[in-house]
Amino acid sequence: MIRQYGTWELALPGKTDGNPFADYEIFAEVNGEKESRVVRGFYDGDGIYKVRFMPSCTGSYSYRVYGSFSDETAEGTFMVEEADSHGMVHADGTAMRYSDGTLYNSIGTTCYVWNLQSEERQQQTYESLKKTCFNKIRFCVFPKHYDFNFHDPISFPFEGTPVDNSGITKLNFNDYKPDTEGNSWDFTRINVAHFQMMDQQIQKLMEMGIEADIILFHPYDRWGFSKMTMEQNEFYLRYVIPRFAAYRNVWWSLANEYDFCQYKTNDDWEQIAAWIQAYDPYRHMCSIHNGYIMYDFSKDWVTHCSVQRQPREVDLDYIPKWLEKYNKPVVIDEMCYEGDIEHDWGNITAKEMVHRMWTTVVYGGHPGHGECYERENVWWSHGGILHGESYKRFDLLLQMMNEANGPLIPGRDRQASTADKSYMLYYFGDRQPHCKWFTLEGAHRIDLIDTWNMTVETIGTFSGKFRIDLPAKEGMALRIVKVD
Amino acid sequence: MIRQYGTWELALPGKTDGNPFADYEIFAEVNGEKESRVVRGFYDGDGIYKVRFMPSCTGSYSYRVYGSFSDETAEGTFMVEEADSHGMVHADGTAMRYSDGTLYNSIGTTCYVWNLQSEERQQQTYESLKKTCFNKIRFCVFPKHYDFNFHDPISFPFEGTPVDNSGITKLNFNDYKPDTEGNSWDFTRINVAHFQMMDQQIQKLMEMGIEADIILFHPYDRWGFSKMTMEQNEFYLRYVIPRFAAYRNVWWSLANEYDFCQYKTNDDWEQIAAWIQAYDPYRHMCSIHNGYIMYDFSKDWVTHCSVQRQPREVDLDYIPKWLEKYNKPVVIDEMCYEGDIEHDWGNITAKEMVHRMWTTVVYGGHPGHGECYERENVWWSHGGILHGESYKRFDLLLQMMNEANGPLIPGRDRQASTADKSYMLYYFGDRQPHCKWFTLEGAHRIDLIDTWNMTVETIGTFSGKFRIDLPAKEGMALRIVKVD
Repeated sequence: MIRQYGTWELALPGKTDGNPFADYEIFAEVNGEKESRVVRGFYDGDGIYKVRFMPSCTGSYSYRVYGSFSDETAEGTFMVEEADSHGMVHADGTAMRYSDGTLYNSIGTTCYVWNLQSEERQQQTYESLKKTCFNKIRFCVFPKHYDFNFHDPISFPFEGTPVDNSGITKLNFNDYKPDTEGNSWDFTRINVAHFQMMDQQIQKLMEMGIEADIILFHPYDRWGFSKMTMEQNEFYLRYVIPRFAAYRNVWWSLANEYDFCQYKTNDDWEQIAAWIQAYDPYRHMCSIHNGYIMYDFSKDWVTHCSVQRQPREVDLDYIPKWLEKYNKPVVIDEMCYEGDIEHDWGNITAKEMVHRMWTTVVYGGHPGHGECYERENVWWSHGGILHGESYKRFDLLLQMMNEANGPLIPGRDRQASTADKSYMLYYFGDRQPHCKWFTLEGAHRIDLIDTWNMTVETIGTFSGKFRIDLPAKEGMALRIVKVD
Repeated sequence: MIRQYGTWELALPGKTDGNPFADYEIFAEVNGEKESRVVRGFYDGDGIYKVRFMPSCTGSYSYRVYGSFSDETAEGTFMVEEADSHGMVHADGTAMRYSDGTLYNSIGTTCYVWNLQSEERQQQTYESLKKTCFNKIRFCVFPKHYDFNFHDPISFPFEGTPVDNSGITKLNFNDYKPDTEGNSWDFTRINVAHFQMMDQQIQKLMEMGIEADIILFHPYDRWGFSKMTMEQNEFYLRYVIPRFAAYRNVWWSLANEYDFCQYKTNDDWEQIAAWIQAYDPYRHMCSIHNGYIMYDFSKDWVTHCSVQRQPREVDLDYIPKWLEKYNKPVVIDEMCYEGDIEHDWGNITAKEMVHRMWTTVVYGGHPGHGECYERENVWWSHGGILHGESYKRFDLLLQMMNEANGPLIPGRDRQASTADKSYMLYYFGDRQPHCKWFTLEGAHRIDLIDTWNMTVETIGTFSGKFRIDLPAKEGMALRIVKVD
């Protein structure tokens, strides 16, 4: 059964002479009662071409599949039943909503190449995700070469042979400058198995209600994927975007740390963005993630600000300014990770992680988690098992976002509220006030929240000018809800 | 006996008709073997005029006292013995040194009007200071009107009568807009007792080795001192600057939170600075402290950057940039205070206070403490008894600064070292790495420092490329000292 916001797919045999990835094209024209689209398909190996389509409406659809892949066209109809999901996430001002209007409050995590680890590790990742409230995960198409990540991935996106990695140990990353020599890839031939695997991973995440924030390019490379020509990049995007775009939970992240990608200029990124726009008929969430310097998020193709927090100019304090400047959602995908590794991006305490997550929320942003305990599996990259303490505290945070009757808008200091002020969150963070004064018109119920110990205690109902006594310890928050 | 960097003082009877504060002047021309100065004196009440002089050299000095205060001149000689102190602090690039070249590493505290509290409270303050390593204290000439500070000071700087304060309670600060009406001051007549008391306070601090960072103007006022005309300001400065300048431990702070002083423009501050320069023959340390917006510290009269840390643009992360920009010492006089009051400038935890103090030091700055537990005496304003936990940890921090063989210059991240790199401090702060890698030429002794538990443990001597295991908890630091 095809559901609204589900995926309709058609597989057809086609030409196999020459290079089916490069030499032929396949398209489908799909017409429903309320929408019409032309979508591009892809070659899926073994003589099979596929087209996929995500219907936004219900009812009867007809299709016509055509292109140089075959001398014939295929035609038919299918029925789309009502959605059993909220649909696809889109930006709505500085907030995010699913297709059906439900607010999407994001609590993400990062596992850069969890999808390229062993089957057993992948299963661990799914099990871990089920225990958490994470509703977005960032990961890469390309493998990652970096500390703790010197082993080969289980598959590569292109046909060919990778460089021998036996001389690389954990201890010599700083000395080892990968020159990407010794690889042998055919950048015109896709390793179909790699993308079939990712199809399944994205679908599994979809079933779990998790957005798949797919990183299309990144700099941590010993295989040469970061040095592909723009022609090769376009070939890659023309394959991956149509292939994944029919999954409602997909987001496009042009890059992890675009400013560390030394082989691409800003003009290249703009061209890449243009190709994504051309090959994605649905306008999935799309952004580009910084190392040090934030990208110009005012560009039309940027749906949201995907930020790596940095001290000074790119600190969390600026979230309200970015919201105002860009009028787009702000997602802090990286704010350092909980952990104990030697790298400063991966060794903040669990308390500090919880603190930054709450801070992001009361500044009106959407926070992202990561974890780096130096074990054989580092969540930040491999997924697997969670060892930390912060992730357990995010259910409460998401609850506080979801129980509001609208998006949280930042106010003064670390305080956010809905537009009508009927729901307010005050987060005191590293402050330990023994009281706070309020002046509010009408009756308000006040809940005291201990963000670390995960307790919510109703203090009472108040109005006018009043004083709330607080336990004079850090990590406390107040929720103030207007009572009718 | 007059000591080098001590104070020579001469008291002489003079004219009392009219207004001796305004109508007459007294000067001393002082000639030593290696220095000559003309210094201004002041009227000290009861028909007595005084001149003071701080000799920078030893040996025989002669003086000639003259001016309209008397129809006669006084002449004489005095001998100056060798210093029993390090002398006066001055800026030396981005560092501070005493006159004898000894490095002055500052660990300050703030007690805005400790000097205007009861005699008993003042004694408590001295006793508290003796238990700490604080070597600078910030305080005001004028009384302070603010939460927890609604009682009258024990004295006022001018002759007259203050407004009745009986209607003011702790609870109504936010509602109460002091209009400074109801006071009756003669701004041309100094209350001599006020300044005699401050003389003694400054001298006592001097004996304790503590710099007196005197705040000349501030906005927290119900008496009208913040609204004095520029003519009245000049009269005030012409009195206070010559009176205190002969004390070697005096610093001038033009203002606490100059940008909150609504009755003064930047041109006024420049004029005030010019008057201070004119009446201070020694060029004491001199700066102006911000509320939100940092003053232009490139001005010639600014000896050091006196900073109130603010989120974003005025955060501690910028200290290295300010050092480079101004080539002057950076003193973070306010970085929020340890405490539990409802105001966010006074409720950070002791751990956070220690963290900010260490952070300031490894960024190459000089940190300042304060404490705000809401009791009858709030250290931040009244002095008295210290209730917190952070101050106990600063002896270790000062030791780490003083044991270096030169000023600490910030390096990458939270790491500082002497110019020759023979002494390095790595501060991990809110990070909890389980190890760090180093590559160092020559043998280095490595000490592990627990900034909170105040332990220093020598790990061993290392050279070349090596790994140091760390306890994977926050608040740790490493000291790396080159071994000959």
